Amino acid sequence: MSSLLGIFLYLFLLLSSISAKNREYKWRVEYMHWCPDGVDGVVISINGQFPGPTIRAIVDDTIFVHLTNNLPTEGLVIHWHGISQIGTPWADGAALISQCPINPGETFLYKFKVDKAGTYFYHGHYGMQRSAGLYGSLIVEVPKDEKEAFHYDEEFNLLLSDWWHKSSHDQQIDLSSKPFRWIGEPQTLLMNGRGQFNCSLAAQFSKLPITQCKLRGDEQYAPQIFKAHPNKTYRLRVASTTALASLNLAIEGHKMMVVEADGNYIQPFFVENMDIYSGESYSILFKTDQDPSNNYLISISVRGREPKTPQGLTILNYIPNFASKIPNSPPPLAPLWNDYNYSKAFSNKIFGLMGLSPKPPTRQNRRILLLNTQNRIEGYIRWSINNISLVFPTTPYLGSIKHGINNAFDTKSPPNTFSKNYNIMKPPPNPNSTYGNRVYMLKFNTTIDIVLQNANALGENVSEIHPWHLHGHNFWVLGYGDGKFDHKKDVEKFNLKNPPLRNTVVIFPYGWTAIRFVANNPGVWAFHCHIEPHLHLGMGVVFAEGVHLVKNMPNEALNCGLTRKMFVKDKH
Amino acid sequence: MSSLLGIFLYLFLLLSSISAKNREYKWRVEYMHWCPDGVDGVVISINGQFPGPTIRAIVDDTIFVHLTNNLPTEGLVIHWHGISQIGTPWADGAALISQCPINPGETFLYKFKVDKAGTYFYHGHYGMQRSAGLYGSLIVEVPKDEKEAFHYDEEFNLLLSDWWHKSSHDQQIDLSSKPFRWIGEPQTLLMNGRGQFNCSLAAQFSKLPITQCKLRGDEQYAPQIFKAHPNKTYRLRVASTTALASLNLAIEGHKMMVVEADGNYIQPFFVENMDIYSGESYSILFKTDQDPSNNYLISISVRGREPKTPQGLTILNYIPNFASKIPNSPPPLAPLWNDYNYSKAFSNKIFGLMGLSPKPPTRQNRRILLLNTQNRIEGYIRWSINNISLVFPTTPYLGSIKHGINNAFDTKSPPNTFSKNYNIMKPPPNPNSTYGNRVYMLKFNTTIDIVLQNANALGENVSEIHPWHLHGHNFWVLGYGDGKFDHKKDVEKFNLKNPPLRNTVVIFPYGWTAIRFVANNPGVWAFHCHIEPHLHLGMGVVFAEGVHLVKNMPNEALNCGLTRKMFVKDKH
Repeated sequence: MSSLLGIFLYLFLLLSSISAKNREYKWRVEYMHWCPDGVDGVVISINGQFPGPTIRAIVDDTIFVHLTNNLPTEGLVIHWHGISQIGTPWADGAALISQCPINPGETFLYKFKVDKAGTYFYHGHYGMQRSAGLYGSLIVEVPKDEKEAFHYDEEFNLLLSDWWHKSSHDQQIDLSSKPFRWIGEPQTLLMNGRGQFNCSLAAQFSKLPITQCKLRGDEQYAPQIFKAHPNKTYRLRVASTTALASLNLAIEGHKMMVVEADGNYIQPFFVENMDIYSGESYSILFKTDQDPSNNYLISISVRGREPKTPQGLTILNYIPNFASKIPNSPPPLAPLWNDYNYSKAFSNKIFGLMGLSPKPPTRQNRRILLLNTQNRIEGYIRWSINNISLVFPTTPYLGSIKHGINNAFDTKSPPNTFSKNYNIMKPPPNPNSTYGNRVYMLKFNTTIDIVLQNANALGENVSEIHPWHLHGHNFWVLGYGDGKFDHKKDVEKFNLKNPPLRNTVVIFPYGWTAIRFVANNPGVWAFHCHIEPHLHLGMGVVFAEGVHLVKNMPNEALNCGLTRKMFVKDKH
Repeated sequence: MSSLLGIFLYLFLLLSSISAKNREYKWRVEYMHWCPDGVDGVVISINGQFPGPTIRAIVDDTIFVHLTNNLPTEGLVIHWHGISQIGTPWADGAALISQCPINPGETFLYKFKVDKAGTYFYHGHYGMQRSAGLYGSLIVEVPKDEKEAFHYDEEFNLLLSDWWHKSSHDQQIDLSSKPFRWIGEPQTLLMNGRGQFNCSLAAQFSKLPITQCKLRGDEQYAPQIFKAHPNKTYRLRVASTTALASLNLAIEGHKMMVVEADGNYIQPFFVENMDIYSGESYSILFKTDQDPSNNYLISISVRGREPKTPQGLTILNYIPNFASKIPNSPPPLAPLWNDYNYSKAFSNKIFGLMGLSPKPPTRQNRRILLLNTQNRIEGYIRWSINNISLVFPTTPYLGSIKHGINNAFDTKSPPNTFSKNYNIMKPPPNPNSTYGNRVYMLKFNTTIDIVLQNANALGENVSEIHPWHLHGHNFWVLGYGDGKFDHKKDVEKFNLKNPPLRNTVVIFPYGWTAIRFVANNPGVWAFHCHIEPHLHLGMGVVFAEGVHLVKNMPNEALNCGLTRKMFVKDKH
């Protein structure tokens, strides 16, 4: 049945590629006063919108975004999270990896193909501009005459984020300060850019002295209501672009069937609520099969960090009830923030959809172990991977590697693993951690295993969740484990049968996560913790593969550093 | 006597040029938490210092500043205020006029000669980075074996600024918002980067409920004490880099003799207190001839805007008194903030020093009238000059003009004057004011008169003080007048006998100011209101002269916009 569906899909894909469209957008990026949670603030907006406009395209369409930077003094890029950028690695939008930041006043053309249906998003990838609100949804549909692997009647889209009252510009300065100043927990969780700080949609159920929101509905912070007909099946597309928060999503009274992860089909499974980490996206199906005379609360709650942020809430409004009808059930109860077994159980339910999800190569050509530690370097707090804390060069790697510029970054190989004696259960002994910008050079078309090893952070008995995101690729999640990765025992337990394809995966406290991918996409690709302050503090690595095969790289992407100098004549 | 001195000076200059030095500096610019007034804040620092390091050089030295931009996402330049940059117009440090902003992580070399002794300063000239604290002193001394035109025993240096608790990054967003959000008055006035917000050095004399500062002296906001021996003559070098405030400076009980203005000798005159506008510098002499058993307060007070900011204070400490000995006289009483006649009287006392100050050409070749108005453009509040509100192109003018790039800016001539019927006493009728980036092309080596015409701002009965600063030149101040400039009557009253040379001059409410300069410095030069929010809102014009004569412009200055593309090969 499912392989038959596969053949149909293939035929549809073939047909759809004939009718593929160019979709062209002109975007103007600027700061804008906005009130995402009822408190006056500033966001980075696109064409006066926050969040940015939703792009809806169909598989094999080509997207053209003419992006004009109207920020007064800052550079700008946009990363198209989950898009593989096959043949267009310079359009990946990772500052100083795939391109130079776009200068204020200048326009850069992102041109890329969306080659796989799914729920994606886009966001700033320079400094901490994602935290400033530079994000939006990117949804790629199957062709009109084609069916998904699951049925639904209508769909909703939900982009999750977290919000601070301190500007991300100031947060960035704080994080780079000596002594270190941590940004703290977000003030508000946002759903499609909307949250409530000074009131609650569920005050009557709360023990806290908070008032019920009295909203007209046209406020910038009024929730976006999901209006649903009874007895239908809805697809909820959900993606998280939080700067920090790991979340748990639930719809009061409604079971959810998870069917898509990061734009990949997964084996459907039912849950009462689900975890979603920054950088991840899912589709879930739910039936509006509850008492139709009521409305229901949809909630997001913080996981993995002691929550100081109220639940984010919006309303599932059964038509024809008034949207303002207060739900008569309390918001969903979130699992305990530190119930990691609960979270692990969710992650371990995710498998590739047999027949539709490709299987991994059975053997890897190279296995890289990446130890995640928090360190002090010259008195600054940093995150390090195998003792190297990533700082970006001034020349984009893609340009310097493609053009053979030698002095653009440290060309020594970064460590393939870490010391066997390293005690992951204790605060790091703070050995020789350094700043660095080395690159993992991957042999083209080889199969790479990465084992992310978590450890104790600087504080005693502290190990955090980190969602790692890979650019330019999907990877198979081969397994999760507790404690230190064991090259023999743990490898034997790798799931090579039906591992899910993802672009983002989490490591749990004191645990490891193993992934596999094929280095078959010419370009330079970031692999990093998607918690924005962690990336800012060095928590990432860089992979390069088949860069000699990259063609038609626009000069506009190389308007800085040594690549610029390359083009400059001696005198004029 | 003075002409003899002139001959001596000439001989000394000849000698000194033989012994001219190269002075080399490596500067790292970054954000830093700092506490300029007792409240935690953030400054842009140079090598961890705020204000930036003082440069002390001798006439004809060459300054090399290797400036590394360590701001995370913002471009950067530094303008060397008062330095003519003869032969090095690309080192003037005006973003998108003389060069491209320096990218984060990159280093740019400013190399220029200091060809005239005097009191100068430097500051950021991109976005509102000057407001963020990017400034410092630049002092050029006469050669060791040479004497100034006046005698003194020792000297002090005083750099004045104003400080807000809201970051300049946020201020900049506010100013560009619709509806407009004005930044308001500064919280604190700073002397050498130090002020007191929550306490006062003169609380015992104040009617306000403010407490006396209890300081150890090592606080970041502790005043820098001026320690002086009794019965000596001191030179106080003072410069103002305020973002907004016009100031009045006084030393309790001490008369001041003003001897230098913007690096030019002036006819000495005595005052009890003196006005200093943003962009100006002076040297004054004072004698420590008061009761040596006391200390004395030095004050700065806001002028021209209803003051909501307390006086800035520090202490003139007569040795061997303790610095902590509280002065027994109150701080100097400032003139009424809106006593413009008092201010005009001060400005009208400033004349060139006969024999040492060069005289202007007797005739101008071109006279340009510049009407200053506040306007609404597309709902945004802007400042306009002859109905054009300056916005910068993405390619520096110096590069696009030098290389004949046509489409870098609007090449139409900007208006040489404004409508004869314009009523300067009423709010602007808001006619055809537009954004623009045109350039006044000045014929090389011609004599240019500029008449700045002030007018009513958007509010009824509001006309503000604007200190205008010219890059690349000193100019003669030919006169000030009230009301609308009269081409006949007012020209007849121009002072061609002993006008002072300046680089900054003020226009008074509803008045005009006339200046003259010779367009003999090949380059492109900004002429603008030195109030940073006003420049940000378009209050400036651009002059170009003899650009074809500019040589050896480094490519590094042209790393953006169309000049970059010029150097780029078609494919590679």
